[in-house]
Amino acid sequence: MDAKEASATDLKRPREEDDNTAASMETENGDQIKEPACFSSVIPGWFSEMSPMWPGEAHSLKVEKVLFQGKSDYQDVVVFQSATYGKVLVLDGVIQLTERDECAYQEMITHLPLCSIPNPKKVLVIGGGDGGVLREVARHPSVEHIDMCEIDKMVVDVSKQFFPNVAIGFEDPRVNLVIGDGVAFLKNAAEGSYDAVIVDSSDPIGPAKELFEKPFFQSVARALRPGGVVCTQAESLWLHMDIIEDIVANCREIFKGSVNYAWTSVPTYPRHLNLYQFMVVYCSGVIGFMLCSTEGPEVDFKNPVNPIDDSSSKSNGPLKFYNAEIHSAAFCLPSFAKKVIESKAN
Amino acid sequence: MDAKEASATDLKRPREEDDNTAASMETENGDQIKEPACFSSVIPGWFSEMSPMWPGEAHSLKVEKVLFQGKSDYQDVVVFQSATYGKVLVLDGVIQLTERDECAYQEMITHLPLCSIPNPKKVLVIGGGDGGVLREVARHPSVEHIDMCEIDKMVVDVSKQFFPNVAIGFEDPRVNLVIGDGVAFLKNAAEGSYDAVIVDSSDPIGPAKELFEKPFFQSVARALRPGGVVCTQAESLWLHMDIIEDIVANCREIFKGSVNYAWTSVPTYPRHLNLYQFMVVYCSGVIGFMLCSTEGPEVDFKNPVNPIDDSSSKSNGPLKFYNAEIHSAAFCLPSFAKKVIESKAN
Repeated sequence: MDAKEASATDLKRPREEDDNTAASMETENGDQIKEPACFSSVIPGWFSEMSPMWPGEAHSLKVEKVLFQGKSDYQDVVVFQSATYGKVLVLDGVIQLTERDECAYQEMITHLPLCSIPNPKKVLVIGGGDGGVLREVARHPSVEHIDMCEIDKMVVDVSKQFFPNVAIGFEDPRVNLVIGDGVAFLKNAAEGSYDAVIVDSSDPIGPAKELFEKPFFQSVARALRPGGVVCTQAESLWLHMDIIEDIVANCREIFKGSVNYAWTSVPTYPRHLNLYQFMVVYCSGVIGFMLCSTEGPEVDFKNPVNPIDDSSSKSNGPLKFYNAEIHSAAFCLPSFAKKVIESKAN
Repeated sequence: MDAKEASATDLKRPREEDDNTAASMETENGDQIKEPACFSSVIPGWFSEMSPMWPGEAHSLKVEKVLFQGKSDYQDVVVFQSATYGKVLVLDGVIQLTERDECAYQEMITHLPLCSIPNPKKVLVIGGGDGGVLREVARHPSVEHIDMCEIDKMVVDVSKQFFPNVAIGFEDPRVNLVIGDGVAFLKNAAEGSYDAVIVDSSDPIGPAKELFEKPFFQSVARALRPGGVVCTQAESLWLHMDIIEDIVANCREIFKGSVNYAWTSVPTYPRHLNLYQFMVVYCSGVIGFMLCSTEGPEVDFKNPVNPIDDSSSKSNGPLKFYNAEIHSAAFCLPSFAKKVIESKAN
């Protein structure tokens, strides 16, 4: 599938009709602007994230000031200052990143795979346009080259403007940024060329579901060296065990090394790139990751072999969330999930 | 302090004025009733939890049907059917329990302490009026006697009526239920009489803060046998590291055995009893526990010595969340929290 062709129309968040509760808001330079549609659907001055995948629940943050509104070729892009989570990046009405808790997601999605193999040298990031995963990959001194394929240049630009502590990842000289379709990029990648692939993209729901199905994982497996690793964002144990079960089963077929599920706590359930403007689901304060390796040198994801020397990357700030203990703990699952996942994975 | 004397007035959640968006709702037998105040503050048909401790954030669940509304001597009690989390118990406008995720909180607050000591026989539960902690304590065949001191009889009655799978804990013949003030009960308890004390109560904010300060912990320590253990609800790492730091420092002074902090994922941040009608804070999808032991036989909380034989308690249903791996993992903290807590605890 060419993902750009997919229509997200029927997945659009059901927006409330604008009514007289909609308020105008102030930009950084004091201009009065009409507030973005996603802000006025529940209560004036509050941003509310609602998803057709999780219709009975909303997550709200108080909006102090809208800092940016734009429309890229792919999605609506909004940055606002929240009362409690710092600056917040919203794509098509869905929270992608907050300054307060982005560390948990970025550090875990990056270091769970990279600390599980010795001396990763060549890494591919699909999505991740805010630059946070790049910031984390750059902490690994063994890494020589980082390809990133991000579809939406506006996300990169906005991150550089409003989230300098996240976008700092783009400054690393090892980064090769490609603006384009990640699926196509992966298909054209040389076989066996990467030590690790990190998929920081949208959810396995609706059309984006293909990113978690066999053909996509086959492309990933093909691009990885023997014993190479992939880490993909993989939903919440609390909400979508059925989807997770399918992903695990698919990965088990494709990846002949290890197949594991890990999870961590991220209060605002960020997604760091909504690649194809599909909806993001509510994630119950936790997010999961699929970690798989190809046939080759054995990878024991639960026992990291490549600790990060935090002192070697002072320019990117200290690690806030990740450590070796929490790496191993991330693979300990609640009983209700363990039963399902262990029946599918090794 | 006699906790009953404390005024919670100034901690009341700032309720929006009723306006023309307030809707009437249907009870189980089809009667139209005015919806509870907490439902109408944001959007008709949605329950929204807001706290003065966390003013910039709200957690909302779609209300399908109000099943019960009452006012006890201590608090407003509401039960509603939610669209996605099953039945929900709300006290003074704050979510205490949902059918979907109560397992995580009840199992962890109970088995973290009880699986850490061999053969617990006598257990005290402060609060926990829904009966869920009792259900979990009852899984331990070594337990001979369980005292529970709960201040609000209405919570017990409502739980028995609407949450039979939670209130099943009251049916155990080892349970001695006392309706009364937990602080006073503890002061009058015989010295060294309990193997374990579980404090399933409100938050260490405002007046209830005393439940997490020295005099209360001194009462707990006095009531425990040498090498006895206490587990108390202890906030969210994401939100209140300052409060946690104080609690850890206080516990370190009082408890001469182990002092540890653990955490787990609970999407709706339940509190299972709001003992003294104080506000409950928003908890970011995680909840923490303080686990301490008195001087005596050493307790290594991170390595449980007393596994649950799940098959021995079929009448209470299988464990859904807790297992020995997740017990140990609960003590692995993110770096930002580890630094602070390890400087205060052992």
